[in-house]
Amino acid sequence: MEPGPCSRPAEPGHCVSGPAGAGSAFPESPLSVAGAEPGDRLGTVAAVLPAGGCGERMGVRTPKQFCRVLERPLISYTLQAMERVCWIKDIVVTVTGENMEAMRSIIQRYGHKRISLAEAGATRHRSIFNGLKALAEDQPDCKLTKPEVVIIHDAVRPFVEEDILLRVVLAAKEHGAAGAIRPLVSTVISPSADGHLDHSLDRAKHRASEMPQAFLFDVIYEAYQQSSDFDLEFGTECLQLALKYCHRKAKLVEGPPALWKVTYKQDLCAAEAMIKEKISQEICVVMNTKDEESVGHLLEEALRKELNCMKITSTVMDHIGGDIRNFIEQCYSFICVNVVSPDSQETRKLLRILEESSLPLLYPVVVVLVHCFDFTSVLLAQKMESLVWIRGLAKEVKERNILLSGLLLNYSQVCTVLTFTKCMFPYF
Amino acid sequence: MEPGPCSRPAEPGHCVSGPAGAGSAFPESPLSVAGAEPGDRLGTVAAVLPAGGCGERMGVRTPKQFCRVLERPLISYTLQAMERVCWIKDIVVTVTGENMEAMRSIIQRYGHKRISLAEAGATRHRSIFNGLKALAEDQPDCKLTKPEVVIIHDAVRPFVEEDILLRVVLAAKEHGAAGAIRPLVSTVISPSADGHLDHSLDRAKHRASEMPQAFLFDVIYEAYQQSSDFDLEFGTECLQLALKYCHRKAKLVEGPPALWKVTYKQDLCAAEAMIKEKISQEICVVMNTKDEESVGHLLEEALRKELNCMKITSTVMDHIGGDIRNFIEQCYSFICVNVVSPDSQETRKLLRILEESSLPLLYPVVVVLVHCFDFTSVLLAQKMESLVWIRGLAKEVKERNILLSGLLLNYSQVCTVLTFTKCMFPYF
Repeated sequence: MEPGPCSRPAEPGHCVSGPAGAGSAFPESPLSVAGAEPGDRLGTVAAVLPAGGCGERMGVRTPKQFCRVLERPLISYTLQAMERVCWIKDIVVTVTGENMEAMRSIIQRYGHKRISLAEAGATRHRSIFNGLKALAEDQPDCKLTKPEVVIIHDAVRPFVEEDILLRVVLAAKEHGAAGAIRPLVSTVISPSADGHLDHSLDRAKHRASEMPQAFLFDVIYEAYQQSSDFDLEFGTECLQLALKYCHRKAKLVEGPPALWKVTYKQDLCAAEAMIKEKISQEICVVMNTKDEESVGHLLEEALRKELNCMKITSTVMDHIGGDIRNFIEQCYSFICVNVVSPDSQETRKLLRILEESSLPLLYPVVVVLVHCFDFTSVLLAQKMESLVWIRGLAKEVKERNILLSGLLLNYSQVCTVLTFTKCMFPYF
Repeated sequence: MEPGPCSRPAEPGHCVSGPAGAGSAFPESPLSVAGAEPGDRLGTVAAVLPAGGCGERMGVRTPKQFCRVLERPLISYTLQAMERVCWIKDIVVTVTGENMEAMRSIIQRYGHKRISLAEAGATRHRSIFNGLKALAEDQPDCKLTKPEVVIIHDAVRPFVEEDILLRVVLAAKEHGAAGAIRPLVSTVISPSADGHLDHSLDRAKHRASEMPQAFLFDVIYEAYQQSSDFDLEFGTECLQLALKYCHRKAKLVEGPPALWKVTYKQDLCAAEAMIKEKISQEICVVMNTKDEESVGHLLEEALRKELNCMKITSTVMDHIGGDIRNFIEQCYSFICVNVVSPDSQETRKLLRILEESSLPLLYPVVVVLVHCFDFTSVLLAQKMESLVWIRGLAKEVKERNILLSGLLLNYSQVCTVLTFTKCMFPYF
């Protein structure tokens, strides 16, 4: 197993670049240079996420940050991506008064940590300004500590990773302001007043300004304090405010394609597909025997050969208490092979461990129960009974976001397993 | 039934705005003003689709236009979208020499019509120029007729609709050049040579230049003939060439979000999701009895109540020869209810009609076979036999892109049907 910080979805409260040896499932972050923690080099860092938008471009009533992706609000994924970076001390989310309660319940339901809420303003800039005020110690009601650097990120860019956050923060420390950029996908043109082409811009000389951006707190806070009403009303670019009012020429940092912003309906579909892909990269085969010749091991080998784009791991039911919890940290798909007998106790134990973890709260968890029979000696009624039991169980756990399916396997027909198993993962 | 030109995926060779009464499944196009065909107003129109890109931004080896979406190359969807507009007489696709054979086989396999191939150049502009040459009568090997207006569109924008094509063509007729534009999603900035922010552009004063674009053929052909090597090598904007060399200020036409360009991996996922949504808007319930009290009718009513975002239609098996063919024109999901008996003949007939249509060639077709039994009087073995038969059939038709599943229904338990039917459509 070599899970890297980018190879798996994040857990709330789980620090990717946490102290080495502190029980993290991850190797030391590649971002920690020469043994020092990023936090040591960065000073205090906080983040502001404006989430007051109304999502009019999405063509749906629900603001896009609250649209559900695999049953979970989009903003929860973004919060998760931010809070897994443990050197970000506080995350201030600005939401409109009418969405404040909904936001609170999202934070509670998905166990988000280090989040403070501030009221959004009427425009994006006013919302960000309100978020900054929540961190500024000159404000009477400030409960947070003023950070040295503040990250500004969009609530609708859930795929932000630690690497780009670190790079903009380091650049901001050096230059006062920094922001992620991406190449332009389309040529940008300037229309004349009557709707004709006035001129087109050289695509090679321009870039799309994306998020995250980062600033020395004092720089961006001063810029906002000095901003005109016109800026706060019609402006779109924080880097521009830092330039205009504090003469800081932001350092531009090339970001990855994953920074894309969920803007239109098709972006929600894309976000869902990307998350599904991320959580289906690994299958854990859980067996109830250590026998190396068992059908479970044969299945594991066969899966490894066939599904070579996926990571196949395995564990034995005996260890289920300890071992399985490690797998749960990075795996969302389980194949539970009951070799000796259709042991409902062991199956229920696995399901209970899954239910008790935060796993199914965050993502749908797929469990395939494989019951092995010798079809020549087992009665049809017994097979039916087994299927009926699985069906009842599936109905029960579906409410808790565990997608259970069953497979009766003729013990000798190992090669047919593969065909079945592939059918069992239509979800991904 | 009121299918509109935009409410369903297109069929190759099937004209959306074809002559009224010419057997089209569509009402007269809303685009045909005062009884005149768009073609009458437009003169001859052809299209050039540059498809020589190598897809480097996608991060995959296959050029993005050849990436598969629901098993079909992306470019086939774009060709389908273009050729359903019957006033586009010729469609010239430019592909690199190494992809020429692959492109030919795509055209043959998916039955595309009115397509000519030309060799792509080393850059986008050179490819478009080659496409124009294939339409220009001053070229020695020209086999096509020079059009009055030429549309230029991207092979990787499969969701283009007739409305925007018509609007850019009409604008091009009037102004010599026209192109679709969209609001900017991100602010555009100009970096300094050392990678800092020089200035940011006012988002409100700029637009993203998208496709389709259209030109009077003579205008754009002259512009390309006069273009410098530098333009052909590094330029990205056809509208700019028309401005620079022919002094035509292109009319800018606001386009819909669906014009987005499949650029990155997440866009492929989005394209797949959008196509799935499009083809799952309608379910046709096929029954083998006219009895208004039959379970088929009850099921139809229940579905209509429950799935109110979908269109539910129905037909009777008797009419299957004629009636069903009309449904096939716009429906990709069928629920086949065998009320009287599990009649394999009728089921096979439906499957044969589906197979013989171009339907499963273009999209996966979902068929749910519902066999009705009175569970109290039917033996388990008989039910199992029915399921085994469906399973065998499913395997057989899956190769031909028909996704068949079966459902045994206790005749009296109509209300349980719904739950089952929803499970049966996990694909969408």
